[in-house]
Amino acid sequence: MPELHESQIETLHKNSQAANQDDMHAYLNELSGWRIESVAGINQLVKQYTFDTFVSALDFTNKVAALAEEFNHHPALLTEWGKTTVRWWTHSVGGLHKNDFIMAARTEKL
Amino acid sequence: MPELHESQIETLHKNSQAANQDDMHAYLNELSGWRIESVAGINQLVKQYTFDTFVSALDFTNKVAALAEEFNHHPALLTEWGKTTVRWWTHSVGGLHKNDFIMAARTEKL
Repeated sequence: MPELHESQIETLHKNSQAANQDDMHAYLNELSGWRIESVAGINQLVKQYTFDTFVSALDFTNKVAALAEEFNHHPALLTEWGKTTVRWWTHSVGGLHKNDFIMAARTEKL
Repeated sequence: MPELHESQIETLHKNSQAANQDDMHAYLNELSGWRIESVAGINQLVKQYTFDTFVSALDFTNKVAALAEEFNHHPALLTEWGKTTVRWWTHSVGGLHKNDFIMAARTEKL
């Protein structure tokens, strides 16, 4: 099985479903510093990255944004002084799909 | 009195205080679409800007960030697909200072 960051993003269909608990647990084990947070009943995959300046945080935001555009899968990016918080989830499945864990793994490689 | 977006950002001192209710109300009346939101007891000045794409939202985030760097006063910027949410507040006064309303007015002019 390829490592998460080398896995292909799957094209979603109307029958695509959120990852189950076992899969989420397995994927999360391949990541470092990410947590799953339920926001209004929607699971999101979250990590806060810290930096020394506002500009460094913004640079990281822009890198994640470029990754998002490349794969046409877009996170929420909160940029503050010295930190960027990245949240991945999949609107159409109402929570987390394998794709979100793949994007998190690719975020780690930036 | 100069309009808010033309007002000078004030240098803060250890005795600087948050704006009072009357001043906040007067400043807010000079702005369009901004609201005051209390987050864990800290007043923040918030506006959500909407766009047609993720990239347009990111472009706006970068413009607000450049403004923030210019004035050395930094907001929280939440970038999502088609929207950027801007939050201004002043950490050292534990809420909103006139500076935050000035920055909001300057944000409006971007």
